[in-house]
Amino acid sequence: MAQAEQKTTPIARLHVPAEDEVPAEVAELWAGPLDRLGFVPNVMRVFALRPDHLLRWWAYYDELMRGDSGLTKAQREMIAVVVSATNRCHYCIVSHSAALRKLTEDPVLVDQLATGYKYAALEEKERAMLDFAVKLTEQSHRSTEEDVEALRLAGWSDEEIMDIAQVAAMFNFTNRLASGLGWVPNAEYFSLGR
Amino acid sequence: MAQAEQKTTPIARLHVPAEDEVPAEVAELWAGPLDRLGFVPNVMRVFALRPDHLLRWWAYYDELMRGDSGLTKAQREMIAVVVSATNRCHYCIVSHSAALRKLTEDPVLVDQLATGYKYAALEEKERAMLDFAVKLTEQSHRSTEEDVEALRLAGWSDEEIMDIAQVAAMFNFTNRLASGLGWVPNAEYFSLGR
Repeated sequence: MAQAEQKTTPIARLHVPAEDEVPAEVAELWAGPLDRLGFVPNVMRVFALRPDHLLRWWAYYDELMRGDSGLTKAQREMIAVVVSATNRCHYCIVSHSAALRKLTEDPVLVDQLATGYKYAALEEKERAMLDFAVKLTEQSHRSTEEDVEALRLAGWSDEEIMDIAQVAAMFNFTNRLASGLGWVPNAEYFSLGR
Repeated sequence: MAQAEQKTTPIARLHVPAEDEVPAEVAELWAGPLDRLGFVPNVMRVFALRPDHLLRWWAYYDELMRGDSGLTKAQREMIAVVVSATNRCHYCIVSHSAALRKLTEDPVLVDQLATGYKYAALEEKERAMLDFAVKLTEQSHRSTEEDVEALRLAGWSDEEIMDIAQVAAMFNFTNRLASGLGWVPNAEYFSLGR
């Protein structure tokens, strides 16, 4: 019953392409997570309304989040969760909390980050990273040289600061698409890694 | 004197790679605008601190802003200017106002969009587009089905609504990088298309 409801509940406010509507490159992209996770993240289904955009956005997003960086994958997902919580993005909090639980095996830490990162017992370097990500999210036009200097003092290099800023900015991008277009996260995410 | 000062003023708060520091693909990317505009937009210089990220971000950005779409290039730049004004992003207001002046040959319209789009004499369809872009920028978590329906009533298709949302989201991305990392626009932009 719950599963039948799931299937008929729309996952976005715009048309969602069916499997037989998408080009081969998109079907190929979907095959990766279907194999790894057992489902296709809804973001990949709804974004397929514009296949060329999906493929190009994904090529950048995937490199940013999982490619070479001075930030660990978990640190990048920490930014994802905290920025998404700041923007109150349901889809992104739920899906990236799941990703971070898998990486850290620490569901309590993840709940703290998703509801109020000031309560989490973080090392100073990661706290500085998240403070900067939130400043960029809430009042980027008030950013100063001192904000960047605080990251350097915490031990981050220029390349790493660029990555922190890009990941924070990326979730300011995805949060707006997800909330604005009514994207609904896959039900699997709620229990993943708990 | 002014030009000499220009050259020694930093264009970002992080290290900016020199021409001989960047890989061939980045040098090639820079050659395009240098040929077309006579200068390399500073965004391409500062983003080159992370060459793989720049190349992948650009591949998506360029397709989104200049590739196939139901939105004209001018409409996409209108969203760029209005979102950047909402976020008070100096770099992006200045550079995208210049781009929109070149496309519209209407510097008064562009100044209206950059300072208060409600004052611009727009057709209803474009006003609905900008209202949605601003809602996404300021309070995406309050977006509803009605916001999307208003765009449909104004005449936009689902694919076009997806593009409006993506362009609005994209400038929420770039605005945060530019403001957060202190990017300074090329002096040429101020007079371009006036």
